[in-house]
Amino acid sequence: MEKPLKMGMVGGGPGAFIGNVHRMAANLDGNIQLVAGCFSSNPEKSRIAGREWFLDPTRVYGSYQEMARAEAALPPGQRIDFVTVVTPNHLHYPVVECFLQAGIHVISDKPATFNLAESLRLRALLKDTHLVYALTHNYSGYPMVKEARALVQSGHLGRILKVVAEYPQGWLLQRLEASEHKQAAWRTDPQKAGASCCIGDIGTHAEQLGRYITGLEIESLCADFTTFVPGRLLEDDGNLLLRYKRQVEDGLPAAKGILYASQISAGEENGPFIRVYGTKASLEWQQPEPNKLILKYPDKPMEIRKPGNAYNLAANAFTRLPAGHPEAFLEAFANIYREAAKAIDDARCGRQIGVYDYPGIEDAVQGMAFIEAAVQSATDGAVWTAMPTMAD
Amino acid sequence: MEKPLKMGMVGGGPGAFIGNVHRMAANLDGNIQLVAGCFSSNPEKSRIAGREWFLDPTRVYGSYQEMARAEAALPPGQRIDFVTVVTPNHLHYPVVECFLQAGIHVISDKPATFNLAESLRLRALLKDTHLVYALTHNYSGYPMVKEARALVQSGHLGRILKVVAEYPQGWLLQRLEASEHKQAAWRTDPQKAGASCCIGDIGTHAEQLGRYITGLEIESLCADFTTFVPGRLLEDDGNLLLRYKRQVEDGLPAAKGILYASQISAGEENGPFIRVYGTKASLEWQQPEPNKLILKYPDKPMEIRKPGNAYNLAANAFTRLPAGHPEAFLEAFANIYREAAKAIDDARCGRQIGVYDYPGIEDAVQGMAFIEAAVQSATDGAVWTAMPTMAD
Amino acid sequence: MEKPLKMGMVGGGPGAFIGNVHRMAANLDGNIQLVAGCFSSNPEKSRIAGREWFLDPTRVYGSYQEMARAEAALPPGQRIDFVTVVTPNHLHYPVVECFLQAGIHVISDKPATFNLAESLRLRALLKDTHLVYALTHNYSGYPMVKEARALVQSGHLGRILKVVAEYPQGWLLQRLEASEHKQAAWRTDPQKAGASCCIGDIGTHAEQLGRYITGLEIESLCADFTTFVPGRLLEDDGNLLLRYKRQVEDGLPAAKGILYASQISAGEENGPFIRVYGTKASLEWQQPEPNKLILKYPDKPMEIRKPGNAYNLAANAFTRLPAGHPEAFLEAFANIYREAAKAIDDARCGRQIGVYDYPGIEDAVQGMAFIEAAVQSATDGAVWTAMPTMAD
Amino acid sequence: MEKPLKMGMVGGGPGAFIGNVHRMAANLDGNIQLVAGCFSSNPEKSRIAGREWFLDPTRVYGSYQEMARAEAALPPGQRIDFVTVVTPNHLHYPVVECFLQAGIHVISDKPATFNLAESLRLRALLKDTHLVYALTHNYSGYPMVKEARALVQSGHLGRILKVVAEYPQGWLLQRLEASEHKQAAWRTDPQKAGASCCIGDIGTHAEQLGRYITGLEIESLCADFTTFVPGRLLEDDGNLLLRYKRQVEDGLPAAKGILYASQISAGEENGPFIRVYGTKASLEWQQPEPNKLILKYPDKPMEIRKPGNAYNLAANAFTRLPAGHPEAFLEAFANIYREAAKAIDDARCGRQIGVYDYPGIEDAVQGMAFIEAAVQSATDGAVWTAMPTMAD
Repeated sequence: MEKPLKMGMVGGGPGAFIGNVHRMAANLDGNIQLVAGCFSSNPEKSRIAGREWFLDPTRVYGSYQEMARAEAALPPGQRIDFVTVVTPNHLHYPVVECFLQAGIHVISDKPATFNLAESLRLRALLKDTHLVYALTHNYSGYPMVKEARALVQSGHLGRILKVVAEYPQGWLLQRLEASEHKQAAWRTDPQKAGASCCIGDIGTHAEQLGRYITGLEIESLCADFTTFVPGRLLEDDGNLLLRYKRQVEDGLPAAKGILYASQISAGEENGPFIRVYGTKASLEWQQPEPNKLILKYPDKPMEIRKPGNAYNLAANAFTRLPAGHPEAFLEAFANIYREAAKAIDDARCGRQIGVYDYPGIEDAVQGMAFIEAAVQSATDGAVWTAMPTMAD
Repeated sequence: MEKPLKMGMVGGGPGAFIGNVHRMAANLDGNIQLVAGCFSSNPEKSRIAGREWFLDPTRVYGSYQEMARAEAALPPGQRIDFVTVVTPNHLHYPVVECFLQAGIHVISDKPATFNLAESLRLRALLKDTHLVYALTHNYSGYPMVKEARALVQSGHLGRILKVVAEYPQGWLLQRLEASEHKQAAWRTDPQKAGASCCIGDIGTHAEQLGRYITGLEIESLCADFTTFVPGRLLEDDGNLLLRYKRQVEDGLPAAKGILYASQISAGEENGPFIRVYGTKASLEWQQPEPNKLILKYPDKPMEIRKPGNAYNLAANAFTRLPAGHPEAFLEAFANIYREAAKAIDDARCGRQIGVYDYPGIEDAVQGMAFIEAAVQSATDGAVWTAMPTMAD
Repeated sequence: MEKPLKMGMVGGGPGAFIGNVHRMAANLDGNIQLVAGCFSSNPEKSRIAGREWFLDPTRVYGSYQEMARAEAALPPGQRIDFVTVVTPNHLHYPVVECFLQAGIHVISDKPATFNLAESLRLRALLKDTHLVYALTHNYSGYPMVKEARALVQSGHLGRILKVVAEYPQGWLLQRLEASEHKQAAWRTDPQKAGASCCIGDIGTHAEQLGRYITGLEIESLCADFTTFVPGRLLEDDGNLLLRYKRQVEDGLPAAKGILYASQISAGEENGPFIRVYGTKASLEWQQPEPNKLILKYPDKPMEIRKPGNAYNLAANAFTRLPAGHPEAFLEAFANIYREAAKAIDDARCGRQIGVYDYPGIEDAVQGMAFIEAAVQSATDGAVWTAMPTMAD
Repeated sequence: MEKPLKMGMVGGGPGAFIGNVHRMAANLDGNIQLVAGCFSSNPEKSRIAGREWFLDPTRVYGSYQEMARAEAALPPGQRIDFVTVVTPNHLHYPVVECFLQAGIHVISDKPATFNLAESLRLRALLKDTHLVYALTHNYSGYPMVKEARALVQSGHLGRILKVVAEYPQGWLLQRLEASEHKQAAWRTDPQKAGASCCIGDIGTHAEQLGRYITGLEIESLCADFTTFVPGRLLEDDGNLLLRYKRQVEDGLPAAKGILYASQISAGEENGPFIRVYGTKASLEWQQPEPNKLILKYPDKPMEIRKPGNAYNLAANAFTRLPAGHPEAFLEAFANIYREAAKAIDDARCGRQIGVYDYPGIEDAVQGMAFIEAAVQSATDGAVWTAMPTMAD
C-alpha cells in the first residue's frame, strides 16, 4: 500500500464497545487512519469521542448525512476512503445507502439491515457501483476458522453430513433493558433490532460461520423461539433444526444441522462453537480456545492444529505472530479489515479487482433471509419453513 | 450383606462386549457371584462362556426358559437371586417376563423392551410382585451425574430453563451390518432393535440422563431422523427439539431442550454430553472426562467439582476411591448393580423396602415412550408430536 | 486359566483404603478369589474385614506368620496361590520373606521395602526360587502409559533428551498425623515409612513411571527436600534434578530430568504427570485424564491418542472396554494383577515362564536406590549424588 | 492524553518479527504514533521498513547515534517522545544509553543488557534522570497474570510455599544457526546474546513471571545446563532448583522453586506455564490458554477465573473487550506500552509521577543477576550459587 487508508466512522461513541473494537481492529496493521466520524446522534457525545481519538474537530460531524456530503466534497487524497457503520441495526441501511451514494466504500456491522428487503435493495444498489461493502462477521476472520474452511474445500472431511453450530451467552438472563443498559435496550427493542433479538444478534453469526466453513446453504428450518425473561419483547433463546440444500447427487441424503443461540444461558460468556461432520473426518472449533482446530478421524488419532505451523493450508496467511503466540478476537476482527482494505486500496489505485476473503453483500442477504425464515417458523409454532427467495 | 448374591445371565456370550461389562460391574464390590447362565442361543458358545467364567457346567443352560425353570427349582440358598438380561432388544420382554414369573429379580439392559406396549405390560406385571427390576442406564451411575442431580434438587441452579443433551458416536459411519459385525447387525435390524436404531440405542441414554438430572419430563418433541448410510434399514442420526412439561406456575415459560444422537459422526467415540441451564447457574458433564462436573455462574468463577471432596452433596457415596483417583465407566455401571443389589438383598432378607438409586420400570416406560414419539415425529416429517399416554 | 487363583492378603483392613483397592483390582477379571487373610495386627479388626468379604473364618488369621504356616500346610488346590502384602512399609520385607520362604508367590505394595539393603536381600532370596514377586506400581498399568512405552521403544520419539515427571498432592498440607489419621501417621513416621515420606510414597511412582516409559536409568541426582509443615518428622516436598545414564554413544549429551513430588500443594489431588522429550517427538500423560496420550511433533499437528483404537501399538491389550468407554485407576491396577496372575498360573501349571508386563524385583531395587540417593543428597544440602551400587 | 505520543524504533527491521510486534502493540490504543526509526544496521533494509510503515524518509536514519542526535534536535512537539529498542542483546546497553543521554524515554526488549554490570550501570544512569525505562517482559502484561499477582497480594493464597515456572519451546531442536536463520543466529552467538541462550532468552521470562506474581526473590539456585544440539555454542536447555529469600519470620521454611526453560522440547510452541502454591490455595496460568486463571483449594471446588468478570480484583483494568471476548499476546504486550505511555505522558506534561504497572530497571537488574547466577552455577557443575550482589 502506497499510503494509509483514511477511515470514517458512524456510531460507536461512548458506551458502545463495538466502536472501539472497530477502531482497534482497523489500527492493528498500521495502514488505516481514523480521520472523521459521527459517533453519536448526540453531538456532544460525538465530540467527546472525536477528542479521545485525536480527530480534527472539523471532521467530527453532527449527522451522518452531513458527514457523507462534507467528506465527499473533500479532495481525493484527503477525504475518507471508507466509512465504518456501527449503529444499531435499524440505521444500518440508511447510513450505508447514504455513503454508497456519495461514492464512499463501506464496512458495516452485522446483522446487515433491519430486514431482508433492505438487504436485497442494498444488493441492487451495489450492483452498478464498484464500491466495497464488507460485513464484519468477525468469527470468519479467525485463522483456524479459515483453516477449517480450507480443509473442507480440500476434501479432507469428505462429503459433509452434519453441522452443529451454537452460540450461547448468558448476559440477558436479567432484564437489563429495564435499567439504563444501552446495549441491552436496543437489542431487545423491535423498533431498533428488527424482528429478532437472539437469532438476529448472535444466531446469525453461527449461521454465517457454518456457511463460511462448509459452503452449505440452508433449504428449510424449524425454529423454536422462547422469551424466557418476563416482559422482554423479543426472543432471548432459539433452537433450530436445519436441512441444507443438496450440493451433489451422490446417493447420500443432503446434510442436516442443529443451530442454537441463547442469551439466557447462565455463565456462558460468548462461546460460538461449531462442529462439522463429514464422511472422512470431523472438525471442531470454538471461540474460547480460538487457536485450536480439532480434527477427529475414524481411524487416526485426534489432531489439534494450531496457527503458524507449516502443515496449515490457509491459516498462516491470517496470523501476525509466529506459532505459539496466541492471537484472539481483535486480530480476527482485524483480518476482516485487512481484506477489505486490500479491496479498497485496489479500487483507489484503479487496480483490477482481486480475490478477497471478507464477508459481503451475499452474507448480508443470506443472513437476513435466515433471520426472516427463523422468525416466520417460530411465529407459526416452530414448523418447517423454507428460506425465502433471495432473487432480486 | 450376610452372604453374596447369586447372579445368572441371559445373553452376553462371546462377541457381545456388554456381557463382560455386566460381569465386571457385578463383580466389583465382591458381593455378587455369577453362578449360572444361558449366554447364547448357540449352546456351544454358551458352554465356552461358562467355562471361561468358571461356572459349574450343569448351570450353563441351553435356553432361558430351561434356565428359569431349573433355577427356580433349586433351594433358596443355592439358586440365583437375580438374572441379568443382556440380549438384543427384541428378547428383553420375553426373557424378563419368564424370570419374573419364576419369582426371580431382574437387571435388564436398555432400551427396556421392543416397544412401549411391552414396557407397559411389564409395569403391570411388576405391580403385584415385590420383585426388583433395574434398567442399566449406566450414565446415571456416575458420581458426578448424581452430584448434578443433587445440585438441581437442592435449588443450586434455580429454575431449569434449558437442557442440551447429546450422544455422538461414529462407529456406524461404514455399513458394518453388511459384513459379519454382530453388534451392528442387530442394532440396525428392525426385527431385533425395534423401530429405531440410533435414538433407541443411545438417544434414549441422553433422554434418561436429562430426566435423571433435572426431573423434567418431555411434553412434545420434533424429531428429524436421517439414514445417512445407504442401504441401512433404520436411522443412524436423529436431531430433536424438546418441549418439557411445566413443573411450576412461576410466570416463566416451561423449559426447552435440544437432544441429538448420532452414529455417523466421524471420530466421535462415545461421548454423552449434557448441559443444563437454570436461572442461577448452569452445569455441564460429559463422559470423556467423567470426574469433572462444571458449574457456571453469572457472577462467580466457573467451578470444576470432582468426586471424593467434602463439598459434594451426593457424589461421594458413589465412589470407591479417595479424591484424585479417577473412576470411570465400569465403576459407574457397578453403582447400578450396587443399588439394585441392596434392594434384592433387602427383599431376600424380608427387610422393608428402602430408598434405592437405580433406574427402573418408570425409566423403561418413559424411555420407550420417548422412542415411540420420536419415531412418530420423524415418520410424519419431523412435526411436533406429543409423548404418548403412559397410563396403564 | 483352568480355575481361579486363590489369593490371601496381609494388611488392608478397615481404614486402609489400599486393601480394598487391591481386592477390587484382583476381582475385576473374575479369575482371582480372595480366600484368606490377616488384615490387621488387631485380630478383631481382621475378623471384621474377613466377614465383610465373606471369608471362611478359619482362614482369617491372627498373625502373618501363622497364616503363612497354615496356608502352606493346606493341599495345593485349596491353599492360597499368592499373597498380597499391603502393610505399612516397615513390614513389607518380613512379610514378603515369610511367604516366599513358605513357597507362596507375592504381590506387594510399594515402596518395596524399608531400605535398599532389604530390597537387595529380597532380590537374592528370589534368585533361586521360581516365585513371582510383583510390585504394584500401578501407574505403569494404564493402557496409555503402556502405549507411551511402546512408542518410545519403537523409536517414534527418536532419542530421548529430557524427562519431566511430577506427582503433586495436597492432602498433607495440614499436620494430619497430629490427629488420629492412620494414613498420615505411618507415612510421616520414620520408624514405619523409612527415611523419606514424600519421595518414598509418591516420588518413587514418578521415578518408576519415567523409567518404565523411557527405559532410562538415573546416574546421579540433586534433591532439595523441605518439611513445610512444622513438627513433621519427614519431608513433605522434594524437588530433584536428574542426570540419566548414557545409553548410546551418538554424540548427543545423555538425557536430563526434573522430578518433583509434593504433599503440600494446595488443591492438588493426585496428579502424576509425565512429559518425555525426544529428538523426533514428545509425549505427555497425566492421571487426571488417563485415557489421553498427547503426542507433539516439530512438524505435524499435535495428536491425542486414546485406548481401543486400531492405531495403538500396545494399549489395546490392556483395556477391557471398546474405544470411548473410559477406564481408570482400578482397571490400571487390575492390569498389574492380570499380568502377575498369568505368571502365577504358568508357574502353577508348570508351564514355561513367558513374558509378563508387571513391575518386579528390579523395580524394587531401583526404587529403593532412588530413595536412598535422594535422601543422601538432601541430607548433604542438595548436592549431586550418584545412585548407590545395586550389585548383589 | 492530550495528543498522541511520538515513537521511534531502533532495530526491528525486515526479518525481525519482534519489531512488528512492538509496532502493533504500540498502535493498539491509538495514542502512539511511530514517526522515526533506524530499523537495521543495513540502511537499505531500514529504508524498506520505513516505507512499509509510511514514515517520512527524512526520519529513517542510518545509525542510532544519528537518530538520537537528530531527534533530540527537533522541537518538543515534533521529536520522538520515546524510543523502542529491539536490537539483539549486545546492542541494548549502548543504544539505551545513547537515547537516555539525549533525554529520550526508552522502552527496551529483554533481556535488558549483555550482562549484569551493564544493567547496574544503566540503573545508575537512570537514577538522576526522570526518564522512563520500561522492559517488555510481556507475560506480566496479561490480565490474568495481573489477577494472579493481586490474589497473592490480597492473601488469597496464604503464605507462598512453592513456585513451579517453566518455559518450553522446541524451535531450536535443529541447528538453525547453521543455515541463514537470523533469529537463531544471534541468540546462539555468545558475542551477541551474552553468556546464555535459553535461560537468557526465555528462562528470564519465567523468572520475571514468578517474581511478578509472588514478589519472591531468589536467594540461591542450582542450574543444570545442557547443549543438546551438537556444535551449538550456548545452552539450549536449563533445569533449575530455586531457594527464595525468606520474607517473613513465621516458623515455616522459606519458599522453594523449580524453574526450567528449553528450546529443544519437540513440538512445544511457546508455553510459559506457572504454578504457585500457598498455604490456603494454589494458582495456575499458562500462555496457551491465557484467559484462564485456575485456582485450586484444599476444601473448595477448583475455579477458573476469566477476564472481564466483576469478581476480579485487578484483571479488568487491563482488558479492552467485554467478558468472553478472548484477548491474547498482542493485547498483553500492549498493556506494557499503555502503562509506559502513561508514565511518559505524565513526564511530558510535567505531572507528578504516578503508579504504573510496567517492568523496569529493577526487573532488568534482577533478570541479569538471575542469568549470571545460573551461568555461574552451571559452569561450576550445577552447584548451589547465591544471587550476585545487586547493590550499586
